[in-house]
Amino acid sequence: MKKAPRIASLVNETRFKVRFSELDPMQIVWHGNYAKYFEDGREAFGLEFPGLSYADIQASGFGMPVVDMQVQFRAPLRVGDEAIVRTQFVNYPAAKICFDYEIRRPGGELVAEGSTMQVFVNPSGELELTSPQFFVEWKERWGVR
Amino acid sequence: MKKAPRIASLVNETRFKVRFSELDPMQIVWHGNYAKYFEDGREAFGLEFPGLSYADIQASGFGMPVVDMQVQFRAPLRVGDEAIVRTQFVNYPAAKICFDYEIRRPGGELVAEGSTMQVFVNPSGELELTSPQFFVEWKERWGVR
Amino acid sequence: MKKAPRIASLVNETRFKVRFSELDPMQIVWHGNYAKYFEDGREAFGLEFPGLSYADIQASGFGMPVVDMQVQFRAPLRVGDEAIVRTQFVNYPAAKICFDYEIRRPGGELVAEGSTMQVFVNPSGELELTSPQFFVEWKERWGVR
Amino acid sequence: MKKAPRIASLVNETRFKVRFSELDPMQIVWHGNYAKYFEDGREAFGLEFPGLSYADIQASGFGMPVVDMQVQFRAPLRVGDEAIVRTQFVNYPAAKICFDYEIRRPGGELVAEGSTMQVFVNPSGELELTSPQFFVEWKERWGVR
Repeated sequence: MKKAPRIASLVNETRFKVRFSELDPMQIVWHGNYAKYFEDGREAFGLEFPGLSYADIQASGFGMPVVDMQVQFRAPLRVGDEAIVRTQFVNYPAAKICFDYEIRRPGGELVAEGSTMQVFVNPSGELELTSPQFFVEWKERWGVR
Repeated sequence: MKKAPRIASLVNETRFKVRFSELDPMQIVWHGNYAKYFEDGREAFGLEFPGLSYADIQASGFGMPVVDMQVQFRAPLRVGDEAIVRTQFVNYPAAKICFDYEIRRPGGELVAEGSTMQVFVNPSGELELTSPQFFVEWKERWGVR
Repeated sequence: MKKAPRIASLVNETRFKVRFSELDPMQIVWHGNYAKYFEDGREAFGLEFPGLSYADIQASGFGMPVVDMQVQFRAPLRVGDEAIVRTQFVNYPAAKICFDYEIRRPGGELVAEGSTMQVFVNPSGELELTSPQFFVEWKERWGVR
Repeated sequence: MKKAPRIASLVNETRFKVRFSELDPMQIVWHGNYAKYFEDGREAFGLEFPGLSYADIQASGFGMPVVDMQVQFRAPLRVGDEAIVRTQFVNYPAAKICFDYEIRRPGGELVAEGSTMQVFVNPSGELELTSPQFFVEWKERWGVR
């Protein structure tokens, strides 16, 4: 996934604070919780660039399951820590939606990075091989081709 | 991680059942929960090949944070579904522990696959560049070199 | 909720094993996870006394949100511990479903106890003041009046 | 717990936003997640009235397990909803810490209410029957007797 064009302007940054319930017995954020932080990033992205939020997708009748997730953990987060998820749209011609993520402390230290790929499932539950109309329109609206 | 030797005999299989609380609004298992299934696989592996369970690692004084996780989601799981995590040790000479995972339905259908890499952190919280003694001994015990 | 008749025969017991991801930084099961164990108990109950599983309720078109939950925590659970959830139906004439729970170690030690109350929401999302037909039939089937 | 004196001034309010990963298949927040919202309330309380945050308690060497939790669910929360946890200290002479909670939408609608009780466990893991010094001092500092 490393050569596809990132669209410089299609980036969202959203801040979060680590909750006690997100810690594991080593007193650091349990690694599985980063899937949640990435998801928060996607949701914030979808609200900043309207048309891709969870509500929009539901309204379209399509599902967008995550089919691939990769995470590299660089430094631990602890209770009360604040961090910023940077979510960047990665453009592919195929019928899928890809994002790259970076999680950093407010001072800039990289905490984690990763990527997700989602595909489209139509209301009958079948994989869509071409991008649905709402996604084509979303791309046009935001100057992605 | 794809060329390292898998040790054919160092494989554990453990079965689980999907819980209601693991579902997302699409009525399928939320993708972030697979980190939990992989972790269950590692724990079952550590019990089958004693010396690598969470209790063993704690007793050693070392931490083993996950530094890389990759998941490919092939088919959804729904409430009440049973599935089997197959956890296979992947041997590297470096000071890290790697596993490959496959999650399948009892009938064999592939649901997800992935991998994790863990490193060693000594009791002072520093990254260990050589394998700690307990891991060297574990490898010897199970014929891994 | 303490005087309503418990139906001695309407009890399910289901066993579970504590997962690493359920621990909190004190190395014990995070207290919020008991809601999950109770839910597992309800689901196992619904499978033993068919007609009240999540699938049955979905098929009925009704929702059954939890409106009250009480938990008393008696002793901690740790990673790898096994425990048994005992879920007992508590009968009320009103349009609600109540359960009492006990979680015990295999040797009998009480770990937690509690109760939940659920109400019925019809497909339009409104609270039902009388028990829906599927619940009336379930009660008749199992000799509850 | 309903007659103990609430200390009018010892109240914290903290706001949160519902995450996608907190939803259940009914598209509402899974009821077990309210334990997390209450915990967030306690943590925010401990930061506003210093001496009771998780870091303070850890530093004291004591544990403060939750031994009782009660929740009444009044109205559902959905993805993206914002809500406010109001956490109020309830004073008891005994060696325990009790809080009452209300979760409301920004417009005032009550979403849930509940309470928790925590006890003190000393560094040897035994229940403390008298309040530890750090809690006595905290009470004095904030005018609670």
